[in-house]
This record gives sequence, structure tokens and C-alpha cells, in this order.
Amino acid sequence: MSSNPESEPATVKLAPKAVVGRVCLYLRQLELLRSQGETTISSAKLGAPLLVKNAQVRKDLAYFGQFGHPGIGYRIDDLISALRHVLGVDHEWPLALVGFGNLGRALLGYRGFRSRGFKIVAIFDNDPAKVGRKVDRLTVEPLGSLCEVVRARQITLALLCVPAEVAQSVADMLVAAGVAGILNFAPAPLRLPDQVSLIGVDLGAQLENLAYKVEKSRDSVRRASQASSY
Amino acid sequence: MSSNPESEPATVKLAPKAVVGRVCLYLRQLELLRSQGETTISSAKLGAPLLVKNAQVRKDLAYFGQFGHPGIGYRIDDLISALRHVLGVDHEWPLALVGFGNLGRALLGYRGFRSRGFKIVAIFDNDPAKVGRKVDRLTVEPLGSLCEVVRARQITLALLCVPAEVAQSVADMLVAAGVAGILNFAPAPLRLPDQVSLIGVDLGAQLENLAYKVEKSRDSVRRASQASSY
Repeated sequence: MSSNPESEPATVKLAPKAVVGRVCLYLRQLELLRSQGETTISSAKLGAPLLVKNAQVRKDLAYFGQFGHPGIGYRIDDLISALRHVLGVDHEWPLALVGFGNLGRALLGYRGFRSRGFKIVAIFDNDPAKVGRKVDRLTVEPLGSLCEVVRARQITLALLCVPAEVAQSVADMLVAAGVAGILNFAPAPLRLPDQVSLIGVDLGAQLENLAYKVEKSRDSVRRASQASSY
Repeated sequence: MSSNPESEPATVKLAPKAVVGRVCLYLRQLELLRSQGETTISSAKLGAPLLVKNAQVRKDLAYFGQFGHPGIGYRIDDLISALRHVLGVDHEWPLALVGFGNLGRALLGYRGFRSRGFKIVAIFDNDPAKVGRKVDRLTVEPLGSLCEVVRARQITLALLCVPAEVAQSVADMLVAAGVAGILNFAPAPLRLPDQVSLIGVDLGAQLENLAYKVEKSRDSVRRASQASSY
């Protein structure tokens, strides 16, 4: 993960990121099961296709409430409703996409957002060659319109895909416009007021992390083969 | 973060992901300082622009070795070389890009990879309309050539940007071809052998996590305003 400081109010206990991530997976799995006509499920069967153990499933869900029924397991309909509410995905989130380069374009087409109720309703860029272009029933708008458009369309979340050099100044514009959360793809740390939530997604750092794991794994193989040759 | 199980050999002690993430940021900052003519730096000055406290900087670097000099701080040249070596970014990593949809295209253009020594040297897709297309001096190749090309070009890492339904089967092909690490963008858990490193980047889950934080933050404001109205 990025090391960007993630602002959150000190008074509210948040479930850890890894737990929320798994619960999102459970939710997807539950929706799949429902579409197949299932009505109840055990924690073991819910976790199995996701490679999560049943004790972990129960522990994760316990963060959000008491959902299991002895001898029955979980009622799929009830659990879906409850989890969608807890995660805040029981309503639509209007998103702003800021920065319409390659990554911005990819995010616009990313099915994983739309299917979860995240809907891009505005696109911004400061490149005159891009402003005015029509994509997906939207028009790319200049950064100068950001504040007005964000307020008019009641946009709460933003995908920030601008170059690192301008990430902070554009984030400041989003905050001034009243956005409540920013998913930051720019490899730059952001300073945001406490009431604005921030998650940083630094793809370069993810790849560096992977390279580091591979390097360590090779070291261990090397050491093992040296040890065995003595 | 994704909840995909991340395979790593049990015998090697890995620095936590958050530490590696920050160390990557220090490395970028050090390279910037060197380009500005600086030769030494204190932990406080290194951390400040990244919003990381000096005690944290020292603690993070201590995972990888003893780098500081009393009264001097860190020698920038030495620290850059050491960190690049530790992170495995002191040499080039040939990458395969698998899946050439919108996200694949964005990753191909992502400057954050190239500047860190990660070089995409092969692109694969199974869509006949894409196979054979020339981009960035590369030709999109069919999945059927994957094994042969990965071996011939000594590709060690792969960016997996295929639909979730086929992610496991394509990952199996990459493993069979001898890839050592996979950065998985498909929202699907993968089962890989222990010797292959895996990091999952589920963008939809990141956005759900952000929505959850915003929702919790609003709850807390709501509760605070209710409390104050009694």
C-alpha cells in the first residue's frame, strides 16, 4: 500500500483495510450465490472459493454485526443487505474523474466500479486538446469548472489521476468543492483536512513491492542451495 | 489492499509492505535531492516532504541495514545504491503485460513503471482484433505464444489485467512459463505455487474501502451532532 497518511476521524473505529477488502469479496460471492438460487450459506462454504478460512470469515463479519444463525448459517439475502449498508454501497456514489490520461481512460472503462454503484458523472482535465471531448455521454470539462460541477452534481468521491506535480493543488480544489473522499493514483503524498478520506494507490510502489518479494525469495533459494552444498 | 493470499517463502523475513512502500518513497526523494546537488541528508529532512516523522524514517531504514553516520546523517549516494540493491531495482525487470484492454493500455503508458527500471517487453491478448497490433515498438501476441516468449525474453514479472473469469488459467500459464512474480489487477483470488510472488491490486475494492471510510466519517459527524442537540 501507499504510505500516504489516510485521514480518518479519531472517534470512529474503522475495521482494518484488509477486513473491509475481504468483506467486499464476501459480498461479491454472496451475490453470485444468490443469483444461483442459494438462500443460506455457512462461513466455511462462503470462504472456500475465496481461499479464506471459516474462522476468518466469522471474525471479519463480526466487525459489522451478529449475522449467523445456529444450524442455518447466514441468510444470504439478509447478509447482502446488511453488508451493502455497512459498506455504504447500498446507494449510488457519483464520482469525479480528474485527469484524463491513459489511466483516467482505463478507470472510466473499469467495470469493477460501475457494478458496485460507483458512477463517474464528471471528467476533468486541463489539456485544451481534451477539454470538450465527448466520452461515455460525458464531456471532458476544464479544471476551472471543477468546483461548480462537483457541487451541482453532488459529487462525493474523486479519482485523482493527474501527474504527481499537480496532485496536491488539484486535491485542494476537490476539497474546496466539498468532496468527501479521494482515491489518489498520483505517486505523491497528499495533505488533506481530517474530514476528507484518502486512499492512495501507487501502482509503481506495488510493482516495487513485488520485485522486492521476488528478490527476497531468490535470496532464500540461493542461501538454501549454498547451505546444501557445504 | 486486496485480500488475495500473497505467497512468500516462510523462511525469509520480509519487511512489511507499508515499510517497503515508504522506502520506495525515500528512494525517490533521495534521487530528487541528488539531482539538486545534495550529498547528505538527515532523517528529519528526508521524511519531511513525505509527511513521515524522522523516527519512522530511521526505523524503516533499519530493516535493511545500518546507513546513518553520526553528525552527518545519510550519505545520499551510498543510501541510493544500497536501497536500490535491497529493493531489487538496481537492474532492469523485463515485464509481460497480459490483457490489453483499457487498463492494460494505461499500464503500458504509466511512467511510474519505466522510470523505476520496469520495462514492458511483451504484450499478450487473446482477442484476434488486438493480436498483431503494433504499440510502443511491441506487437500484441496471442496467449498461445506466452510460454515461448516469456522464456525467450527472460521475463520475470507479469502485469495481469485480464477479466476475473480467466485470471487463474492465465496465471497458471505464466507460472508454467517460469514467471517469478505477478501483479494481479483482476478482482479474483489466485492460487499460485509458493515460489511465485503475488500482489493483488483490486481497484474496485480500494474504492469500496474509501466509500466505507466516508460513510463511517459521516456516521461520526451525525452522532456528534445528535449528541450536541440533547
